[in-house]
Amino acid sequence: MGLPDYKGYKELLVTLENGVLTVLINRAKQRNTFNGPTFLELVNVFELADLDDRVKAVILTAEHTAAAYCSGADIAGGWDLLFTPEEEKEGEHAHRDSGGVLALTIYRCRKLTIAAVNGHAAGVGMTALQLPFDVRFAWSGAKLTFPFVRRGIVPEATSSYLLPRLLGQSRAMSLLLTGETITPDHPHISALYHQILPTREAVYPTAKAFAEELAANTSQVSIALAKGLVQHPGDSAEENHLNDSRSMRITGKSVDAAEGVKSFFERRPPRFAGKLSTDLPSWHPWWRPLDVKHRKTKL
Amino acid sequence: MGLPDYKGYKELLVTLENGVLTVLINRAKQRNTFNGPTFLELVNVFELADLDDRVKAVILTAEHTAAAYCSGADIAGGWDLLFTPEEEKEGEHAHRDSGGVLALTIYRCRKLTIAAVNGHAAGVGMTALQLPFDVRFAWSGAKLTFPFVRRGIVPEATSSYLLPRLLGQSRAMSLLLTGETITPDHPHISALYHQILPTREAVYPTAKAFAEELAANTSQVSIALAKGLVQHPGDSAEENHLNDSRSMRITGKSVDAAEGVKSFFERRPPRFAGKLSTDLPSWHPWWRPLDVKHRKTKL
Amino acid sequence: MGLPDYKGYKELLVTLENGVLTVLINRAKQRNTFNGPTFLELVNVFELADLDDRVKAVILTAEHTAAAYCSGADIAGGWDLLFTPEEEKEGEHAHRDSGGVLALTIYRCRKLTIAAVNGHAAGVGMTALQLPFDVRFAWSGAKLTFPFVRRGIVPEATSSYLLPRLLGQSRAMSLLLTGETITPDHPHISALYHQILPTREAVYPTAKAFAEELAANTSQVSIALAKGLVQHPGDSAEENHLNDSRSMRITGKSVDAAEGVKSFFERRPPRFAGKLSTDLPSWHPWWRPLDVKHRKTKL
Repeated sequence: MGLPDYKGYKELLVTLENGVLTVLINRAKQRNTFNGPTFLELVNVFELADLDDRVKAVILTAEHTAAAYCSGADIAGGWDLLFTPEEEKEGEHAHRDSGGVLALTIYRCRKLTIAAVNGHAAGVGMTALQLPFDVRFAWSGAKLTFPFVRRGIVPEATSSYLLPRLLGQSRAMSLLLTGETITPDHPHISALYHQILPTREAVYPTAKAFAEELAANTSQVSIALAKGLVQHPGDSAEENHLNDSRSMRITGKSVDAAEGVKSFFERRPPRFAGKLSTDLPSWHPWWRPLDVKHRKTKL
Repeated sequence: MGLPDYKGYKELLVTLENGVLTVLINRAKQRNTFNGPTFLELVNVFELADLDDRVKAVILTAEHTAAAYCSGADIAGGWDLLFTPEEEKEGEHAHRDSGGVLALTIYRCRKLTIAAVNGHAAGVGMTALQLPFDVRFAWSGAKLTFPFVRRGIVPEATSSYLLPRLLGQSRAMSLLLTGETITPDHPHISALYHQILPTREAVYPTAKAFAEELAANTSQVSIALAKGLVQHPGDSAEENHLNDSRSMRITGKSVDAAEGVKSFFERRPPRFAGKLSTDLPSWHPWWRPLDVKHRKTKL
Repeated sequence: MGLPDYKGYKELLVTLENGVLTVLINRAKQRNTFNGPTFLELVNVFELADLDDRVKAVILTAEHTAAAYCSGADIAGGWDLLFTPEEEKEGEHAHRDSGGVLALTIYRCRKLTIAAVNGHAAGVGMTALQLPFDVRFAWSGAKLTFPFVRRGIVPEATSSYLLPRLLGQSRAMSLLLTGETITPDHPHISALYHQILPTREAVYPTAKAFAEELAANTSQVSIALAKGLVQHPGDSAEENHLNDSRSMRITGKSVDAAEGVKSFFERRPPRFAGKLSTDLPSWHPWWRPLDVKHRKTKL
């Protein structure tokens, strides 16, 4: 397999520059709504980004002139579009929410992931397109809402797992049970954002500069292991100690750690050469990923 | 069994209006202290509210002219009042803290629950009467304290579980280990409150208007499932994905979801007809509730 | 064994006054960097403090005129200093990070623990020397950083467990994945601090007065049980209810609880006589501590 060129997407515009992969949802005329093809392309691009050593950070964004960053799922045809005939044949337990499949793909991506929320966001535009990212930048005027209980459905895309974990259950309940519409600096949600910018056009350039600085000055292996440790901290401080000790031992002997010390004492930026494809220890992942695939009934 | 009329309580005043059940602690002369009869009546009213389809939200409050929202347990007779002869016969493992029994009853109530804290609060007035609720409104001048370590006992009513989960462990430790007295806008506790009001008399009307709006415009089944998902998110994002997918599949085919889409495109408020007694899927609860009842020794 | 006199440390200055043990890192000329002897002395003093009934609170601090509170591990010799020949013989799984060993020792200390951060802090100065404490005081001008991903290693000392738990995962990711340098009032980190002081010289006296007030007015047994309940809340509200009920039953019959009620009604400060060595119930700890010791291979 050659290196991906990130071309040929219909709903996305994808560019790789200075180790930063920018994924732009290119559906401004449709308010950047989430539909089947967009879902598949997003899953694909985050899977590639995870595997492509050239990518150190991924930014998801939209055109700052669009009506919204993402105004949610396209539900013009009703909810039935969510359910596939294959799943329906199997029964209700066979359904896998597409927002959740995307959220898991982004959450598992071992590179630094950044959402640059330069417009309004609702539904899946708040959940899968924001919560599984490592950090989020937002426009201070963005109208944000988790409207699920006002539509007769439930918070999806693993938002009921991620949101309390990110912000605490007090804020998560305020957001998910009321379907309120607020802006990023509201105390219910402000802790979700790494930085809040005053204009729509400032959001992506700020996120890009942030991503480029980190792409240049952090170790790819360190980022992957740090993400794994935070996402899978273990059930106790003691269990975490076993895992971070082993991670320290492995990285402490690495070329990146040697360069980390050397560049520090030489007072210059580091030049990290480690890559996930060759330098991530085989011990990763140390947790057992739960398989969420449905096994079809064979009669 | 007919529908409850919520009359006949001695320590509470309970009224049902527009889908909102207001529970007022009617012990102003006793600073709304918590005692045996108040405990039993509160457990009873939250159990009824959970089962009564007419109730979409429950507000707990007090008279805004009372000396306190709740100044804690009535300990004039010492701590021994907490322990029953039946439990004592069995041993220390048989004791079940009444604040905790009430907290679990409120936490498990599948309707939207709201604490309207329009006065000072201490001890169980901070724990069982606030923490298990979905959202909390408070008067900015309320003096709040968890005084347990200053009385020779421990934080009770599942507060050591709920508070770190709601606010994070840093704030929880500051509150529970110092027994400090602070007001709602203090950074140690402000994230506990959905909204902070400048006057005592504004708290309940604001909470009531909030509750009525949600009672009118949210699905009872959506609220119950959303609460279940946040309270029982699973041990990983993957496990949550299985649970929210099934919840999405079930609600996506419901009358409430159909009305949710229809009203959205007709730009009118929804009229949700789903009820917990008939429309909550049999799959709920998907978690195994731990039985906390003590089994008596029979010799 | 007689009572410890807390003398004889080479890297620390330790004093006991009014129930408060002050541990001062006495390496100002080395920017209070963390090295092997400092590690061993810190583990020793927190183990003694845990056992010494005279100690009700422990403060860790530094000279406010030093270049830093702690500027991290001494890595002048490279990372290899972290790894011992004994561990290396066994393999990578045998390594136990010294920052983590210290963090666990502090986290398990059953007394009130306080970090008085009166200077800049980096690396282990942010992790082991801050996160496992119950509360933290800081100088508003302190430059704080978790630089691990910029050095080719990983966040250590159980920081990937403690930080998300203390502040939520959103803030933890911002701090651990960027290695940014910020001050205590920055929204990414402000929730870590009980109080932020405007001058370096104010930090320790404020922490000392706070510790003395709590040493005088809280029950040693209550603090130990409250810490245990918050650190080990159980997997559900129900499990917590069983644990806090038993803790309430045990403390409710104690001399400290009797004094707690009596002093409350007599409107005077309590005089708690309970001590960990004699009054902590045998039921504590109710959780099973995970053994992190490496068992050597014997062939």
